[in-house]
Order: sequence, then C-alpha cells, then structure tokens
Amino acid sequence: MRALWLENRQLRLRDDVATPAGEALVRVLFAGICNTDIELTRGYYPFTGIPGHEFVGEWNGKRVVGEINAVCGTCEACCNGRPTHCQRRTVLGIKERNGSFAEYLTLPIENLHEVPDEIASEEAVFAEPVAAALEIQQQVTIGPDDRVLVVGDGKLGQLVAQTLALTGCRLAVIGRHRHKLDLLKRRGIETIESLPPRKFDIAVECSGSSAGFVAARSALRPRGILVMKSTYAGELTFNASSLVVDEITMIGSRCGPFAPALRLLADRSIDVRPLISATYPLADAITAFEHARRPDTLKVLVRNC
Amino acid sequence: MRALWLENRQLRLRDDVATPAGEALVRVLFAGICNTDIELTRGYYPFTGIPGHEFVGEWNGKRVVGEINAVCGTCEACCNGRPTHCQRRTVLGIKERNGSFAEYLTLPIENLHEVPDEIASEEAVFAEPVAAALEIQQQVTIGPDDRVLVVGDGKLGQLVAQTLALTGCRLAVIGRHRHKLDLLKRRGIETIESLPPRKFDIAVECSGSSAGFVAARSALRPRGILVMKSTYAGELTFNASSLVVDEITMIGSRCGPFAPALRLLADRSIDVRPLISATYPLADAITAFEHARRPDTLKVLVRNC
Repeated sequence: MRALWLENRQLRLRDDVATPAGEALVRVLFAGICNTDIELTRGYYPFTGIPGHEFVGEWNGKRVVGEINAVCGTCEACCNGRPTHCQRRTVLGIKERNGSFAEYLTLPIENLHEVPDEIASEEAVFAEPVAAALEIQQQVTIGPDDRVLVVGDGKLGQLVAQTLALTGCRLAVIGRHRHKLDLLKRRGIETIESLPPRKFDIAVECSGSSAGFVAARSALRPRGILVMKSTYAGELTFNASSLVVDEITMIGSRCGPFAPALRLLADRSIDVRPLISATYPLADAITAFEHARRPDTLKVLVRNC
Repeated sequence: MRALWLENRQLRLRDDVATPAGEALVRVLFAGICNTDIELTRGYYPFTGIPGHEFVGEWNGKRVVGEINAVCGTCEACCNGRPTHCQRRTVLGIKERNGSFAEYLTLPIENLHEVPDEIASEEAVFAEPVAAALEIQQQVTIGPDDRVLVVGDGKLGQLVAQTLALTGCRLAVIGRHRHKLDLLKRRGIETIESLPPRKFDIAVECSGSSAGFVAARSALRPRGILVMKSTYAGELTFNASSLVVDEITMIGSRCGPFAPALRLLADRSIDVRPLISATYPLADAITAFEHARRPDTLKVLVRNC
C-alpha cells in the first residue's frame, strides 16, 4: 500500500509498504497533521515507520475514529485506571505502531469509536485532538470564576480555547497571528496582545515554545496552575525557587476522552471547520507537511478518498 | 543590639544594630539555621539585613514562635485565602524584614503563637520548618495506599519524612548520609539506597540539588506528583515533553500551618531533638553558619539566652 514513511527524521512516500493485518483493519479516509508529527521529524521521539495519529476511517462498513494508545490491559497502569499510560503500550504513528498517513492502519477493535452521522469526515479527524484538549478538564477543576489563559493561537490552542470556553471560565488567548486570533474573536473568545503579570489562575501552554512557557508561567498568580499541553523536542529551563515560593503547580496533559469529543463535535459545541487550512491527497503528503510547517497554517489534512 | 548581618552575600556580626520597635517586640531565645539562610549567602535572593526566620522568643512574658510572612490583609491574595502569598508581604529574615539571628525581632502580634509548656525552647525553634513540612499535606491528598518518596535526608527531609509518616503512607527516604538515614530507621521509616524507576505515586524533593530533582522525577510513575520543597539559587533544566507524556504534576510547596505543627511537637508525634547537631551563642553565629554548611550536619541553633 501507499504510505508516508519516517526514518532518521526524513519523510518519504512509499508505495511498497505491506498492508497491515490483524486487529481492526481500518481504511483511512482522512488523516490530520499534528505538531507532534512535525516534532517527530525534528527528533522529538526516535520513531521509524508511518507517522500520523489523527484519522477517520472505515471499518466494517462504519466510519470510525480511534484511540491512539494500544494497551496491554494487565500492567500496573492499566489495572489502576491509567490505560493511556500502559507500560507496554504502542501508540499510533508515534511509538512502535504504524500510523494514519497511509491507505490502511490497524488498531485493536476496542480502540475504535463510531462517528455519528452529524459529523463530516473532515471534522471527525479532530476527534483525537479535541479529546486531548478535554483532558485538561479531567485534570483540573475549572469553573466560571477562574481566569484562564491559553498561550498559543495554533490548532492546539484553538481547540483548547474552544473546549475551555464551555466551562464558562474567564478565558483569554494570547497569540501572534491576526487571522488565528480573529477566529477566536468570532466565537466570542477574548484575545489579548500583552500579558498582565500574575493575574491568571490557570495558564495552558499550547505554543510548544520556551517563550510560551515563560509567558504562561509569568501570567500566573501565586498557587496558579500551569498546564503543559505541547509536546516538543528540547529542554526547558526554569527557576525552581520561584516555583516553590509561588507554590505553582505544573501539570503535563496528553490524551483525553473520545466519547465527549465526538458528542461536542456532533452538536457543534466545538466547531473545527474554520481550522482546516488545506487538504492534500496522500500522494502529496510531503507537500502537506511542508504546508503544515508554515506558521500561518492551522490544520492540514491528508485525504485517501 | 547584637545581630548577624547579611550584605552582598557576606555575613558579619554587628553590635550596633538599632533595637527594632513597633509591632510585637520579641526577645529571641533560640534561632535555627535553615538551608534557605545558607542559600541567601549564595545569592538565592538579594536580601540585606538580619537573616533568620526560625525562632522561639519571649513576648509579653510568654514563649512564642511566629509565622514569618507579615501581610497586608487587603490585597487580592490576602482576600482570597492565600495570605502567605500577600503581594505586599515582608518575610522575616528573607524579604524586607530583619530576622531572628539577633537579640530582638519584631513581628505583627497576629503572627505569634504561644508555645505549649510541653515543648522545650530548643524544640520550639522547629515550629516553622515543621509547619512548612505540613504544607505538603495541605496541597496533596496522601493516604495509606500511596507510595511516597522523600529525596534528601537533611533537616528538611527528616521533618518531611516524619510528618508524611503520620499519614500511614508507604514511605521511603533516599539519602547519602549513613547517620541521617539511621535516624529515620530508628523511627521505623524505610530508607533506600537506590531507586526503582517509575514506582512512586508522590516524590518530595528535599535535597535542594538538581540531582535530587532528577532522582525525584525519575522515581515517579506516570501521573505521579513531584513536590518541590527546597528553595535554592540556580535554574533547573528538564525535559518538557516527558512531563507531558507522563502527565506529571509538579507542585511548589512553601510555608505551612503553625497550629498543627505545635500540637505535633507538643505530643511528640514529631521528635526534633535528634536533629539538633549543635548550639552556638549569638556571638559565634558566623561559626554556627560554617558548621551548618558541613554536609554531615543537621540543625544548628543559635542561642541568645
């Protein structure tokens, strides 16, 4: 089958990858390019194979999306309600499991979720990142009284802002791209250009940059919560004493729940359509990645239908 | 009056410091040397004046200890139940307020707590660091099922281990000093010499070193909690993506509640007597600091009685 192949940080299109077998064999309809995919090409994690973990596909005559962690069900993490942290997990397009920039992928059947009819296929691709955005609310209690800052107006920041807005919190987004901030404004989400220091109860780092981390940290009041949502290559340096003196909480946040993500997409509480910058056929997946790397871009999709 | 004076990271003994006035004038009986005091001489915070924030003294014919943050009562932090984070606070011996290595100090009357008769003055000096240790349990729910690691066997690690042991958690301390670990063993607290990776639910960094931070981080299971208890000069570098992928929580922890600290000292649930390495008269405070800097030392007291 045809697939995009990542090896030694280089992407190339192959037509000679064996079609996978076993588990649920899903024919990919659309796959989405995530910043994590781009970070993989920068060495964030030494993955060799087909990248891609956002997709909608067909299985057994149904449209499906899928949870990306394939887990053992028996390790300590699995037995203690933390399956996404399974010690023996493989992760679609990230860790020891081929991903979605391909004609076909496989996942355990139990990872699949049927897509409601109300959701177009191009929108369903967003189930995974919307689920990841919703993870924040599984970890931190956020209510109407909380002043919440999202750092970053990219595709992750957009989804996080949309899901946080549902809490009724006092939300603001800081970013650098006029048209991306305008998308948020059109949804009634406040955007700001400069940060009042030490004013926010919660800050969510969605920029994937150390500058974004510094901005999020400095915007927090004492005892504030810094949610780290971006994965990226490289190290962060911070002042440990300031974390102690201000009793800041930092919390890493990764994969989240698919069922509410699909519900929110189906009833249009979350609107992902304005976030699609471009769609390329699988044959042009390399070009799609080049497009996705441009700073003015939001979501780039790769279609296989 | 006589006092120890810190200026440009240098300590010197002075006999010409004006006796303070206003607020409650406390005659210092004993003051304790904390690692924060030593870090101040390394530039952790640009403080000029009399250092020292652990003390027992006499005021109005009573023995008293005192909370170290003098607060405004009207700022946003004060009005929202976070007085130790008062935006206009002064802090005894740390920030814009002379401290306890002196014949006298002043604090607002409301900061003082009377010392129960059961507590010897040398033990009462520990009220402040015991309160700080108890802050952890105000921030993190810890119970008998939790596997908790304390990194560091110094005076802070000893008090944190003693207070955490009261929760009934599965506690282990890792440290480098045989006689300090022996003190813990004698209280029935497990000590370990090497760390099983990714096994602990909670790790408390009490070593004040970047090596201790790395050890605490690597000992945590996914979704574990890293409590940062030490204040020290310098920056920490860490892998942000690993924090995100493992969904680790890091939380800074500073000052805590005095009332339970005094109760636990009074009923001997916490025993600080084995932690006193030496006591020096105020005239020998410089020597006391030199002693406190030696790695085999626990608490060094300075007496003024």
